[in-house]
Amino acid sequence: MTPYRTIAQQSASYPVFIARGAIDGVGGIVSSAAGARKRPFVITSANLLEPFGRPVAASFDPPARIVLIEEGERRKTLETAAAAVTALLEAGAQRDSVAVVVGGGMIGDTAGFAASIFLRGIDLVHVPTTLLAQVDSSIGGKVAVNHPAGKNLVGSFHAPRAVVADIDALATLPERELLSGVFEALKSGIIGDPALFELTEQRRAAILERLPEVLEEVVRRSVDVKGEIVSADEREGDVRRLLNYGHTIGHGIEAATHYEGMTHGEAVGWGMIAANAIAVRRGMLPGHVARRIDDSIAAFRPTPPPSLDREAVLRAMAHDKKFSGGRRVMILPRAIGLCEVVDDIESAELEYGIDAVTAR
Amino acid sequence: MTPYRTIAQQSASYPVFIARGAIDGVGGIVSSAAGARKRPFVITSANLLEPFGRPVAASFDPPARIVLIEEGERRKTLETAAAAVTALLEAGAQRDSVAVVVGGGMIGDTAGFAASIFLRGIDLVHVPTTLLAQVDSSIGGKVAVNHPAGKNLVGSFHAPRAVVADIDALATLPERELLSGVFEALKSGIIGDPALFELTEQRRAAILERLPEVLEEVVRRSVDVKGEIVSADEREGDVRRLLNYGHTIGHGIEAATHYEGMTHGEAVGWGMIAANAIAVRRGMLPGHVARRIDDSIAAFRPTPPPSLDREAVLRAMAHDKKFSGGRRVMILPRAIGLCEVVDDIESAELEYGIDAVTAR
Repeated sequence: MTPYRTIAQQSASYPVFIARGAIDGVGGIVSSAAGARKRPFVITSANLLEPFGRPVAASFDPPARIVLIEEGERRKTLETAAAAVTALLEAGAQRDSVAVVVGGGMIGDTAGFAASIFLRGIDLVHVPTTLLAQVDSSIGGKVAVNHPAGKNLVGSFHAPRAVVADIDALATLPERELLSGVFEALKSGIIGDPALFELTEQRRAAILERLPEVLEEVVRRSVDVKGEIVSADEREGDVRRLLNYGHTIGHGIEAATHYEGMTHGEAVGWGMIAANAIAVRRGMLPGHVARRIDDSIAAFRPTPPPSLDREAVLRAMAHDKKFSGGRRVMILPRAIGLCEVVDDIESAELEYGIDAVTAR
Repeated sequence: MTPYRTIAQQSASYPVFIARGAIDGVGGIVSSAAGARKRPFVITSANLLEPFGRPVAASFDPPARIVLIEEGERRKTLETAAAAVTALLEAGAQRDSVAVVVGGGMIGDTAGFAASIFLRGIDLVHVPTTLLAQVDSSIGGKVAVNHPAGKNLVGSFHAPRAVVADIDALATLPERELLSGVFEALKSGIIGDPALFELTEQRRAAILERLPEVLEEVVRRSVDVKGEIVSADEREGDVRRLLNYGHTIGHGIEAATHYEGMTHGEAVGWGMIAANAIAVRRGMLPGHVARRIDDSIAAFRPTPPPSLDREAVLRAMAHDKKFSGGRRVMILPRAIGLCEVVDDIESAELEYGIDAVTAR
């Protein structure tokens, strides 16, 4: 199989494969990307075992061993990562093993983090099976688990050896999970690719019907946006921060609602609406452009947040990694395809943004 | 204060300060190495709080906040690292904070690992207070915790911003802990500096009496040996593997005796005696050189292992990271100051080495 592209980060370069049926090629891809002598261990969840885990394991000769971890945002913890480490040890994984992580963002982040600390780090290959993981979390090398005090507070940078996104995996994805990825793709369009935004705007029905050609285009363009950004800025300088558009208030909403009732992508959708309101108020973004973005988000019908408590959102944001050193940083759009890092956000602006979500 | 030297690893360069009274200069050193705007958090144990933790915290203006973690090899776990992360969050640490880790190898490894995964890694400064930590564990960027299945199985590479070794801290070190460091220094001499080995051989009494000039020389020469090695090979190629001289069978002895009854350095001392026996048997090392090394180790009187169970040692070694990919790798000396990586060690040789320890 030919990679769609290579992402060249500072610490490592890796190929990204995006194709229908790509899962059947994982064995061959891993052998050429990580080395044929490396022993593969597929890490997935019980739910994903039959549809994806076993086919991936069977693509190796001999078949890869399979390690199961728990799934769900509530299990995205250090305990689950530790259980993955123990399971890897018990399955016989060693320093020259490669972890082939099959699943959505939670599994990729948790098992990827486990791979990053297992024997101080073993090779990692992501096989993202959700749209969110394909367009966002499998790219860039960030892995992490949650802490009771906030999301992704414990983690590391551990670039994969390869990413293999099978578009066919999206056919059976629950609708809300599909939408979760759509909002991240829409975000990528606004920060760096107007054509991608237009795709989510104009091909909405085709996306919801999961037309493979359209989904493949969405994944490719999203990977391009994120790939360019993480190539320019592996860690967390201003360039990479652009990816946080919609995430500052979005994370606050997620935390204030205890990560229940809405997907990550939906929270990002609301967070973008909040950011747009602030950008308009600052005079950075024309009102009609904000309305166009907001309407496109709303057309995908994100679950409305249950009666947002403004103070709870603000409190939850206090722990946010992005509010570094006491400066309140947010990403605000100037146009579709152009965002900017702003580091002097006032409390009153945050309140205004949160209220814009409630008013919607 | 002027650094003794700079260690230039692939991922980062950092100064190493080695001096009497260096602890009082930590605040100034951290400001220039990590940036004056970074907020410092001293991580240490309750036992080390008064003698070292508070003086280090007081060297900052305003004084650094202090976070306490549990100590002891049995607490060198993911749970203790997780508790350190929680304590850092509660103390208000953020992405631009710097963790100033004050203590011996266990604290440096555990709190250093916590710093490496806290918000995907914050700045780290090591203030090693034991000879073992000064000559070995604070240098090179490896941090890790133990797993029930073996030592240091969970960890990462996280180079410090600076290392500050205060020779005065060694004055009150319990004798067995001093010796633990002596054996690692002796090891460094054999792998890379005959003068360092001779120092441990000829200045034994001065070392045991803790003559500061001699201890400083031991620390400096040990840091030179390890610094050269980790500069040439940050991860785990053949060069860095040289540091494992004495550690293969040493780790097996530690695990088989459940990390009780002897220090890490003592286990390494016995491990070197085992390795020497194997090297002589292979014709790599002249018998009189082996005797000279063995005698020098024995002169420091390492606690004899309690009736070693040969099978238990071998079983414990099966999980060793260094026995990668089924190949049994050991470091064997050819001369004082010259060691070699050997990757075809036979079971019978391991048994012979273990028996040499028992016979001693």
